[in-house]
Amino acid sequence: MLRGWEFQIQLDEKSDKAIYLQIADAIINDIHSGRLKAGDALPGSRNLARLLNINRNTVVEALNVLIIEGWLTPKERQGTFVADTLPSLKETQKDRKTLTAINNSAVKHYHIEFDDGHPDSKIAPIAELARAYRQIFNIKGRWKMMGYGCELGDEVFRKEIAQMLNHQRGMQTSEQGICITRGSQMAMYLIAHCLFSKGDYVMIENPGYKPAWAAFENAGAKLLPVSVDKDGLVIEDVVAHLKSRKKIKAIYVTPHRQYPTTVTLSLKRRLELIRLSNESVFSIIEDDYDNEFHFGYRPILPLSSFTELKSYVYIGTMSKVVAPALRIGYLASNDSFLVRKVGDLRKIIDVQGDNIMEQAVLQLIKDGIIKRHIKKATNYYKTKRDLTASLLEKHLSSKITYTIPDGGLALWIVPDKQVDWVKLSEALKRKSIKIITPDNYSFDTNIKGIRLGYGSLNEKELEEGIIALAGML
Amino acid sequence: MLRGWEFQIQLDEKSDKAIYLQIADAIINDIHSGRLKAGDALPGSRNLARLLNINRNTVVEALNVLIIEGWLTPKERQGTFVADTLPSLKETQKDRKTLTAINNSAVKHYHIEFDDGHPDSKIAPIAELARAYRQIFNIKGRWKMMGYGCELGDEVFRKEIAQMLNHQRGMQTSEQGICITRGSQMAMYLIAHCLFSKGDYVMIENPGYKPAWAAFENAGAKLLPVSVDKDGLVIEDVVAHLKSRKKIKAIYVTPHRQYPTTVTLSLKRRLELIRLSNESVFSIIEDDYDNEFHFGYRPILPLSSFTELKSYVYIGTMSKVVAPALRIGYLASNDSFLVRKVGDLRKIIDVQGDNIMEQAVLQLIKDGIIKRHIKKATNYYKTKRDLTASLLEKHLSSKITYTIPDGGLALWIVPDKQVDWVKLSEALKRKSIKIITPDNYSFDTNIKGIRLGYGSLNEKELEEGIIALAGML
Repeated sequence: MLRGWEFQIQLDEKSDKAIYLQIADAIINDIHSGRLKAGDALPGSRNLARLLNINRNTVVEALNVLIIEGWLTPKERQGTFVADTLPSLKETQKDRKTLTAINNSAVKHYHIEFDDGHPDSKIAPIAELARAYRQIFNIKGRWKMMGYGCELGDEVFRKEIAQMLNHQRGMQTSEQGICITRGSQMAMYLIAHCLFSKGDYVMIENPGYKPAWAAFENAGAKLLPVSVDKDGLVIEDVVAHLKSRKKIKAIYVTPHRQYPTTVTLSLKRRLELIRLSNESVFSIIEDDYDNEFHFGYRPILPLSSFTELKSYVYIGTMSKVVAPALRIGYLASNDSFLVRKVGDLRKIIDVQGDNIMEQAVLQLIKDGIIKRHIKKATNYYKTKRDLTASLLEKHLSSKITYTIPDGGLALWIVPDKQVDWVKLSEALKRKSIKIITPDNYSFDTNIKGIRLGYGSLNEKELEEGIIALAGML
Repeated sequence: MLRGWEFQIQLDEKSDKAIYLQIADAIINDIHSGRLKAGDALPGSRNLARLLNINRNTVVEALNVLIIEGWLTPKERQGTFVADTLPSLKETQKDRKTLTAINNSAVKHYHIEFDDGHPDSKIAPIAELARAYRQIFNIKGRWKMMGYGCELGDEVFRKEIAQMLNHQRGMQTSEQGICITRGSQMAMYLIAHCLFSKGDYVMIENPGYKPAWAAFENAGAKLLPVSVDKDGLVIEDVVAHLKSRKKIKAIYVTPHRQYPTTVTLSLKRRLELIRLSNESVFSIIEDDYDNEFHFGYRPILPLSSFTELKSYVYIGTMSKVVAPALRIGYLASNDSFLVRKVGDLRKIIDVQGDNIMEQAVLQLIKDGIIKRHIKKATNYYKTKRDLTASLLEKHLSSKITYTIPDGGLALWIVPDKQVDWVKLSEALKRKSIKIITPDNYSFDTNIKGIRLGYGSLNEKELEEGIIALAGML
């Protein structure tokens, strides 16, 4: 037996790990720690078996593993040795980076959370979605959907989206112009990286949607703020930026219901923006994040539906309709080259979308369930909006300015007096109430309002939250 | 009635679109086309109703929509007018980018397709997956999983992955060091953008995995090729690169079964690589793409399991185990800062993963189904490998050099004679057989072999394909 080497091992018969692997790993540990050194001879398998009180075959298997893995070298008639060609490693546990707890931003819990307009997960059509999954798992040839697919998304699904856009939103597109994405955020990310190079400029609404800005900046673009008034983004600001002769590649807009202020871009300004886009050759990136839940006649038609517009990227999402966890959005563009570029980048990022989920959602669309759900949810959210409006009227109307939006899941309120938002949100936090402070919508401090999501809160929470807010304003 | 304006419209009662919206859109079209001009007076609703032979209320609704949308202006006691503030747009249909057909790379169909090692979708555990989806749709509080989640992936799922890595692959990680990704490609993309800046260098195996290279180059990194021999990547090449004093941030390796050649990195070289990584301070990005289907004792332990290694990023995937369509992979790193950076980037790209799918896969893991499936699939693929080996032996052994891998879904063959791959693949294409030519694994022309996936082909296809190949070599 090897002088000086005492093989210490606790064999655990209940472990998932086979006994021979437990032995192998114990020997590896001893090599690591230096207790066994390059060139050392190991005891014979018979001796080891006796020592460990186990079957010899088990020991032979352990040694075989170590020989295959290169830790040991068998020498004919001489036995088994620790490989003598192994370079020694110093244990660097000290220098090693150690894992520390990660602050998980999604895990904060408040009693009442005024988000920026999340849908109510409690009314998500889960039973219908479950049925759709069941259905698609039962179709003939279902294994075909389990392989690799197209980076732009399933063709039938893209056709369905194109049809919906053409039919309900006045657009003229086809599956060739569509890419299915993982929520609208991925659409923004893809478009940013396909449109912008370092040093390019993009005009954005201010206040606006910071996650989109983050995607643009991530692609190297610089932001040019355009202010927003009661008719939406201010065209004069756009004109001024265009005169600056910077390399402006696009404008990012939310014309239907501006994020965060909920104002609708007036028809006049929409037409002016289209004209400017054509003349000065920049793309319009239109984020129609909130088309679905509309309480009036119909959502205004997208800028992208105007045949006069030369270059558009239209972004929509179904995550709000079905459930936020279902990351499914799409982008549409009339620029084939751009769509192809998007597909190429998409391959590098994550190869393709979630085919199974896309099929399930397609089933929901085909069965008319999405349409029915939108109708139902729209009524549900209209009731909440009305309730919120009456609560604001009752408790806050003397302290804030606001307009009631004709759709969506949030409204914009501006206190009449100067507010110290840091102090206010800290005070609310102590009551376990969360608000999103104005700095989340802008990089300048002129923005005085906050977006108050009502979609995901129930009656009691809305009332309690608004009363608390009123007490502090 | 407005002089000169003849309102032409085909009302379609069967359309999804309400009649009043059809009327509204027809009027918008006339404004677009210039048939109605700014300031024009519209006929009264009574006249229009008579003209169209419909209820007057329907016309009033249509006009209301147009007033709300800003196309028309009502003037008290005078009637309704086309808004006179609208800027005119020129129809630019001619200049407009038009959509052209997109070449869909995923849609090519061959009779026999030698891929680079896809799993067989036909044995995907679809029934089990369907059951898992059913289960998670039925759990109490299921609506909670429908909201927004953590960008790194569900915490319980990350714990499960960490446990698996620690238990089965000798690692020492925790959920803090894990990010669930959409397949290994997204892991590569995220890591590339978090590790590399423009001008950085990354060492890669040559031949190697081009989709990973694409991710690195997309992040601005330059590639430094390291050649590969029968013991895996050549350490001398690594040393030479390190001497060049370039800003080398990482090496990308597939030690367990090198992609595409399937050779295993020898223990000696693994230890040397770890030493170099520690000394010269570059990260090891270890892609263990093919850990699961192993026919021998056990897969070699990852480099990332060596406690001596200071900085690792370990990438794994479950897409091959369950089904390629299920884009689910993960990355593990001992660098908390890096993991946090990955999470931040992930938020910008697509907010979070597919919570529903993650829950379903978690269910499969918890129920032991993944483990059972891996066992079953491993036997299945071993049979295929053996068949492939015997077919190669029978038909090709005099013409090629190859080794039989002890796991995985593909093998590497190198013809003894010089081959014109373009000509050969064209000839095979005419027989509807696809191979992946050597240029797909390298940027230099020294690479003479091809990777022959056998996992997704059946017996007949394998035999036919190999005989055809033999006939042409």
